[in-house]
Amino acid sequence: VVSAQANIYAVILAGGSGTRFWPASRVAFPKQLLALGPSPESLIRETYKRLSSLTTGDKILVATGKHLLAGTQRELPELPDASFLGEPRARNTAPCIAWAVERIARRDPDALVVVVPSDQFIENEERFHECLQSALRSAEAGPITVLGILPTRPETGYGYIQAGAAIDSDTYKVRRFVEKPNRATAEQYLREGGYYWNAGMFVFRASVFMSELARHMPKLFEGVRAVGLAAAQGREAEAVEELFATTESVSIDYGIMERTESINVVPADVGWNDLGSFQVAWELASKDEAGNAAPESAVLIEAGNNLVMDKRTTPDTRVIALVGVSDLCVIQTDDALLVVPRERCQDVRDVVAVLKDTARTALT
Amino acid sequence: VVSAQANIYAVILAGGSGTRFWPASRVAFPKQLLALGPSPESLIRETYKRLSSLTTGDKILVATGKHLLAGTQRELPELPDASFLGEPRARNTAPCIAWAVERIARRDPDALVVVVPSDQFIENEERFHECLQSALRSAEAGPITVLGILPTRPETGYGYIQAGAAIDSDTYKVRRFVEKPNRATAEQYLREGGYYWNAGMFVFRASVFMSELARHMPKLFEGVRAVGLAAAQGREAEAVEELFATTESVSIDYGIMERTESINVVPADVGWNDLGSFQVAWELASKDEAGNAAPESAVLIEAGNNLVMDKRTTPDTRVIALVGVSDLCVIQTDDALLVVPRERCQDVRDVVAVLKDTARTALT
Repeated sequence: VVSAQANIYAVILAGGSGTRFWPASRVAFPKQLLALGPSPESLIRETYKRLSSLTTGDKILVATGKHLLAGTQRELPELPDASFLGEPRARNTAPCIAWAVERIARRDPDALVVVVPSDQFIENEERFHECLQSALRSAEAGPITVLGILPTRPETGYGYIQAGAAIDSDTYKVRRFVEKPNRATAEQYLREGGYYWNAGMFVFRASVFMSELARHMPKLFEGVRAVGLAAAQGREAEAVEELFATTESVSIDYGIMERTESINVVPADVGWNDLGSFQVAWELASKDEAGNAAPESAVLIEAGNNLVMDKRTTPDTRVIALVGVSDLCVIQTDDALLVVPRERCQDVRDVVAVLKDTARTALT
Repeated sequence: VVSAQANIYAVILAGGSGTRFWPASRVAFPKQLLALGPSPESLIRETYKRLSSLTTGDKILVATGKHLLAGTQRELPELPDASFLGEPRARNTAPCIAWAVERIARRDPDALVVVVPSDQFIENEERFHECLQSALRSAEAGPITVLGILPTRPETGYGYIQAGAAIDSDTYKVRRFVEKPNRATAEQYLREGGYYWNAGMFVFRASVFMSELARHMPKLFEGVRAVGLAAAQGREAEAVEELFATTESVSIDYGIMERTESINVVPADVGWNDLGSFQVAWELASKDEAGNAAPESAVLIEAGNNLVMDKRTTPDTRVIALVGVSDLCVIQTDDALLVVPRERCQDVRDVVAVLKDTARTALT
């Protein structure tokens, strides 16, 4: 096991402002702060718990939007304040990962860093940890290593990773990253095999990442070095503000992963799910005999296969009653209510668009 | 016009604890306090406004449950405190009407009293006032007079009044009151004609009512006389408490109207509606082109023929969004939400039953 020898850090990516779970999620309360899986705990807390056996709290960093800091810290009270990196602006994943890794590299250039999104569900935790061990071994030897999710359907919504030559039984060289394919291509990938979904989970040595950053994104490299120097003088906040005001919005995939020469992939059959919609949340949720995923307090009369979420904060005695309705999502917050058939739950984006058009951004 | 000569009083009956509009209505917030018709004002306020051209505020009495006094007074701020009669217990209509009329008779035995429920909708106000004038003329001559609603369907949910001999073009003697009929009988009434729905609207001289009360309900007569005497000594509250603790629960129909010898009926084609369900409320409501009756703030996307009620008190920016759903009732309050197909809205009673069974009476 790598973790016994190595100095392992984790970076949890907790930005995002998805509208796919409106009104449960908001700009100021994104998906990772919600309990969308079968667990009653939030996705970010589940993510943290998954990593906490790997390292200690002082070695777990959480990168999130500045406006989300309070809500995010509330979910992870075990972590010291210093664990939280508040991005002044959303600039995609490259700037915040670079900021986090520069800080880790200053403390220990040999550190192994695990980067994971905060808003995904992983069913098979044991298998996840086996895959992570393979990835840590691979990264210890040098190459940046990505977990590649074994596809279960011809999904056109994700980028893919094509595996090349085998390094050992668990690990392959990456032949190439490919953009979201069309349906025919996605079906071909599935038939052919050797293609994996890119779920944004990476493992690398801090020093390796920093030299790849210097090569492929020199401006960002200089930017985070400046932040590091400023931090040593107690002026990190101003430097971060300046960096995020000027740096480009670039994903880590596009900025580094697709350009680096030596990168490995560990196929991961871990029951991964990106929880992309209420439909998926319903599929994963624990349900009653009638197929309803609903709070215990709900009154359900001849109602079947509904997803009911009650996010109201007061009063404690509140109730949601469904009579004679099926296959609905009923999502309730203090200031908003959504009723939509499960199979149309993607259309919630249209509601958010209408709210923006009618100058009701407080509700988005 | 009678009102120019006579001393007209009105008694608005505002008891009731219906569960048919849960969660919008509650035990502590019954139907008449809701705006269920096309008007944005509550049914009781619409009732009051309908009568206010007939008499002055000091001659309008409102009989309601003691626990409903505050909410009822809030709807009718124009009326003096003395206008409100708070029943310590629900005892059906005879005791509260007797209490109110005794008070009126003490002030003016010759007063003409109009008794109306507070929770009905009347579309044609002009015609209503014409009918009321006929009833006032009839009552001025002696007989208790009831407004008989012209039936529009073979309704089995109401009692009927059969008209007898004509007194003039507007007024008939009552042949008999009949209980709620079965379907076949209701259809026969409709075919035959001369049958009217009993909507609980009566007009009579105070003195006539008091002597009929003395004859048919002597105990109640003694009871309200005792209340009247106590009131003269400033001890009305205790006397009322005692009366309602001991008096029987009897309707005015059963107690007096069905027993009195001289009683007239004025057929009333006034667009009357008892607003018995969310379905009826939807039918009467003003709707958008897609048939939705909803607050203006609602976001409705490919949604049709829905009834949306938002009774939340905070925050002001709240929203209800319906996407891709049809023919639903979506009723929202601060502590409860109901989703039910319009055609099953009667089943809301089952929800209230479940709440009682699970010791959540605060929600009923």
